[in-house]
Amino acid sequence: MLSDLLRRRRPGHALEAAFYTSDEVFAQDLAVIFGRHWIHVGVEADVPEPGDFVAVNLGGESVVIVRGDDQEIRAFHNVCRHRGSRLVMEAQGSVGNLVCPYHQWTYDLEGRLISALHMQPDFDPSCHGLKPVHLRSLAGLLFLCLAPEAAPGFDAMAEVMEPYLSPHNLRNTKIAHQTDLVERGNWKLVMENNRECYHCNASHPELTIPLFEYGFGTYPETAAPEHREMAAQYQLAEAEFTGIWSACGLPSAEVDRLADVTGFRTMRLPITEAGESHTLDTRAASRRLLGNFTQARMGGLSFWTQPNSWHHFMADHAVTFCVLPIGPEETLVRTRWLVHQDAVEGRDYSIENLTQVWQATNDQDRSLVERTAAGVRSSAYEPGPYSQQTEGLVDKFIDWYTNRLREHCPA
Amino acid sequence: MLSDLLRRRRPGHALEAAFYTSDEVFAQDLAVIFGRHWIHVGVEADVPEPGDFVAVNLGGESVVIVRGDDQEIRAFHNVCRHRGSRLVMEAQGSVGNLVCPYHQWTYDLEGRLISALHMQPDFDPSCHGLKPVHLRSLAGLLFLCLAPEAAPGFDAMAEVMEPYLSPHNLRNTKIAHQTDLVERGNWKLVMENNRECYHCNASHPELTIPLFEYGFGTYPETAAPEHREMAAQYQLAEAEFTGIWSACGLPSAEVDRLADVTGFRTMRLPITEAGESHTLDTRAASRRLLGNFTQARMGGLSFWTQPNSWHHFMADHAVTFCVLPIGPEETLVRTRWLVHQDAVEGRDYSIENLTQVWQATNDQDRSLVERTAAGVRSSAYEPGPYSQQTEGLVDKFIDWYTNRLREHCPA
Amino acid sequence: MLSDLLRRRRPGHALEAAFYTSDEVFAQDLAVIFGRHWIHVGVEADVPEPGDFVAVNLGGESVVIVRGDDQEIRAFHNVCRHRGSRLVMEAQGSVGNLVCPYHQWTYDLEGRLISALHMQPDFDPSCHGLKPVHLRSLAGLLFLCLAPEAAPGFDAMAEVMEPYLSPHNLRNTKIAHQTDLVERGNWKLVMENNRECYHCNASHPELTIPLFEYGFGTYPETAAPEHREMAAQYQLAEAEFTGIWSACGLPSAEVDRLADVTGFRTMRLPITEAGESHTLDTRAASRRLLGNFTQARMGGLSFWTQPNSWHHFMADHAVTFCVLPIGPEETLVRTRWLVHQDAVEGRDYSIENLTQVWQATNDQDRSLVERTAAGVRSSAYEPGPYSQQTEGLVDKFIDWYTNRLREHCPA
Repeated sequence: MLSDLLRRRRPGHALEAAFYTSDEVFAQDLAVIFGRHWIHVGVEADVPEPGDFVAVNLGGESVVIVRGDDQEIRAFHNVCRHRGSRLVMEAQGSVGNLVCPYHQWTYDLEGRLISALHMQPDFDPSCHGLKPVHLRSLAGLLFLCLAPEAAPGFDAMAEVMEPYLSPHNLRNTKIAHQTDLVERGNWKLVMENNRECYHCNASHPELTIPLFEYGFGTYPETAAPEHREMAAQYQLAEAEFTGIWSACGLPSAEVDRLADVTGFRTMRLPITEAGESHTLDTRAASRRLLGNFTQARMGGLSFWTQPNSWHHFMADHAVTFCVLPIGPEETLVRTRWLVHQDAVEGRDYSIENLTQVWQATNDQDRSLVERTAAGVRSSAYEPGPYSQQTEGLVDKFIDWYTNRLREHCPA
Repeated sequence: MLSDLLRRRRPGHALEAAFYTSDEVFAQDLAVIFGRHWIHVGVEADVPEPGDFVAVNLGGESVVIVRGDDQEIRAFHNVCRHRGSRLVMEAQGSVGNLVCPYHQWTYDLEGRLISALHMQPDFDPSCHGLKPVHLRSLAGLLFLCLAPEAAPGFDAMAEVMEPYLSPHNLRNTKIAHQTDLVERGNWKLVMENNRECYHCNASHPELTIPLFEYGFGTYPETAAPEHREMAAQYQLAEAEFTGIWSACGLPSAEVDRLADVTGFRTMRLPITEAGESHTLDTRAASRRLLGNFTQARMGGLSFWTQPNSWHHFMADHAVTFCVLPIGPEETLVRTRWLVHQDAVEGRDYSIENLTQVWQATNDQDRSLVERTAAGVRSSAYEPGPYSQQTEGLVDKFIDWYTNRLREHCPA
Repeated sequence: MLSDLLRRRRPGHALEAAFYTSDEVFAQDLAVIFGRHWIHVGVEADVPEPGDFVAVNLGGESVVIVRGDDQEIRAFHNVCRHRGSRLVMEAQGSVGNLVCPYHQWTYDLEGRLISALHMQPDFDPSCHGLKPVHLRSLAGLLFLCLAPEAAPGFDAMAEVMEPYLSPHNLRNTKIAHQTDLVERGNWKLVMENNRECYHCNASHPELTIPLFEYGFGTYPETAAPEHREMAAQYQLAEAEFTGIWSACGLPSAEVDRLADVTGFRTMRLPITEAGESHTLDTRAASRRLLGNFTQARMGGLSFWTQPNSWHHFMADHAVTFCVLPIGPEETLVRTRWLVHQDAVEGRDYSIENLTQVWQATNDQDRSLVERTAAGVRSSAYEPGPYSQQTEGLVDKFIDWYTNRLREHCPA
């Protein structure tokens, strides 16, 4: 049935309803898309100290990400090798060892079973260590891969992206705020919504203060006549910021590798007016700038990864988003706001000013996702055509998604 | 499996449990019964002015019913032709055009796409209008049919029923009150409960004030000896009211076309005592009478349609019921109380007096439906025999239902 | 698929995840395990007087247990023979006859249909009595069997157990307190948790006040060196209590018939310190002792039955537990505390003191069950080895379970 759906997909058009509603497709999404690719799940700042852990739920899987005494961050399946109890139920915490609360089987932070009481003499602890999960950090952004053999392309992505990301020095940040938003819609509806700004003018009054509608695969050169004034403003701002980026030695070429197995895209985006940050007054939200930045007016660096993340890095703070499917029609959007680890709340930044643009935007997007999730259930729903001018990145997301399924689910 | 269930159905007996519990039967109920027949969903008074709309959910479908600037009422699938967003999420409202909130694709009230920004030159708006749904009004009662080709029989029903209904002039009414009751049971249990008054004496203390237990397929001529006194009272009341109806030129012959594809039944029913209305004191609830009625003591006109509605029309008000399946074991009962559109709440009627008989009755029926829904899940449940004297209309409902399924689901 | 799962089961190891999560296995558990075996569901004290009833839900089944005017306790399917309504919706109550609230079909306490109004002359009430369910009492503990032909072995169990149980005279008790705890996990996880005390030391601070960790299939003779001191204390207490039991003429031999179709196990267990009861101070909770006991210091008698119960009988009170599956991952644990029927709350016992050890223990076990239920959903879960020293009874439970399935579900 999935192969029929894939065969019927019409280029340049939305997906059929089953992709957003069926249990069978969702199982394949978990197995193939989330089970065999690099998935953004967090940041190094989630686990600042040795023994700190976070647990990430991904479909039926639960993964513990823990920083070892050697400062290495590792990931393990959150399941005891005895009778399957979860090792940790909390979303985060700090431990010396990972001790299963059921019968106290004890694993060190590298996953080795170091104690199991009452077991028979022929029991071999070395065969009962925690099962590891591939984990990589890209300049402080954590990605995991659940497959036995990790997906190719992480190193290639890292090579391209490190020069863009390292000036923001994410390893030297802390999480100022984090939100979990549950949206009643398939995860792909969340991603499609992220991949275009066609809906921004009407739905995002806050976001369109700092941001232009260009830069999300929509180019000012192709603007319709009635949009040319806005396009010209964008082009002026882009030229000014390109000068700043160049003077600061920041790479600013647009990179689009969205079709890769480990697909991604980056570009620097101008910010309107004062041009400092994603805030309601477009000024920096944190007085303590990231990395070695000495000026706040740097615009933004955007970074998108297939299949489940996007990020905006400014001189003063960063916002990272990861999308985690819960069920065929239920999705978690986890948003983190990162500031310099020495920034002090109340003195250097306020949570409200830091977060209000994206809190409002996330909620508006949730509403759009949910009404689309409701709509595609109609028998009258028929996938419509994308706007080539404004929905090119949506089409690229869907192409990547369908190609990845095709590779792993041959007819 | 459905064909086995249909083949095993024993005449004069209740249905097997799977008809009330299985996902497969429910899918067929939606596809065949609710997908290919005329379904009562509302009244003209739902949308009194041009631009007024209501949205009706029917299984996974959502339909917008909207009055055009030409006063015509039309129905469309509530789904944008672009990426499938619902056009309206609210149950009712008023609009100039139907504008999709996602990307502002704009449809006029006749369903034509009149604006879609950023689309490429070869995009043809005329191929992307809203998908229409068949809609008909029977003297102010709205019925829709989701099938491409509407079910036969609507005109025949209208021809019979117009003379009965038109004196109540429903097009000149307003909705004084509306309730939505969600019952945890299959929609057929709700309908079966409606089709008999065997349960009335023990369960409906309020309803049995204005109503006799006869008229719901139970005839006084066949009453058991211990019921003959009540039967005689009914016959006296019936004779008196028949004189009134005849003097007023109102048709009063019982009509039973429940076996038709567009099945229905009507009869006038005497009301006890003062004989005016379905109220606790049997007096009119509204001082402003419907249509051209000059006296309140007219008894009631009852009207049942297959598969999902029943109605009671009195001289002063009308009560309409429509049953909308939500899931295999979840059903919505929507009740509307209609009064003359010039009646003034507080002066001419009170909501409490107008609605209390049927509010109480609906809730009592919900309880009976829910305990039956729980009971049929038992492996020990075995369809029992209907009482020929009191459950004849239940049997006719089940016969209609099984015949309609048989026609569309050949073995 | 079930036959594959059964074939793959590795002796001495936990079950695969599907046994705890799949709808298919759960359906077989209901059909075979709960549908064809003797299931503990209550006690005679549930229905002390003629006309008293309790309703027990077991999967989709509902059974009414009612005491007749002849003092006989009977069980019937809780479903009317007319249209399937539940006869009683309440968990307990008292009636003269069982009257269906829908159309007043009336059954006497022996299940005979004694009234059905409006039925046609050829309707035969004697063919429409309530459907009976096998019910047996073992010294006051009620067991039912849903199969047409009851499972073998009840008499054999009764013959062994009566001498152990009768001194506690359960027929002369009342329910001082009852709790229903819903655990989000498969019923077998609840049972496995019950069948070992490997987890007791770390998880049950209250329970380990009166109880040693031995007696649950763990023998002091095989204790590891670091546990020998505790083992020696247990052996001393056991020797002392064995003297008391012997002096009182109480049988105290351990019996293990867990592999029988109607499987069970019993043994007397010493209690620490004052050695009277399962309370925080190990003293009797009720001043009015059970049966003919004249001294409280009798230790405890434990009794386990396959597939779903365990019980602890002391001189002053008894605690009985029955496990009722609700869904693949939802289970009810019903706990009853029984005291002498003449004991007076406030004077002879307090609910808090009587129940606090097992209330705390139940809640701790719920937490362990729920974290295991979450864990086994992981794709990385792999059934681990049982400790031969401490998890022997878990292994016997799983052996019984898989053998019973194998017998009824041949490959």
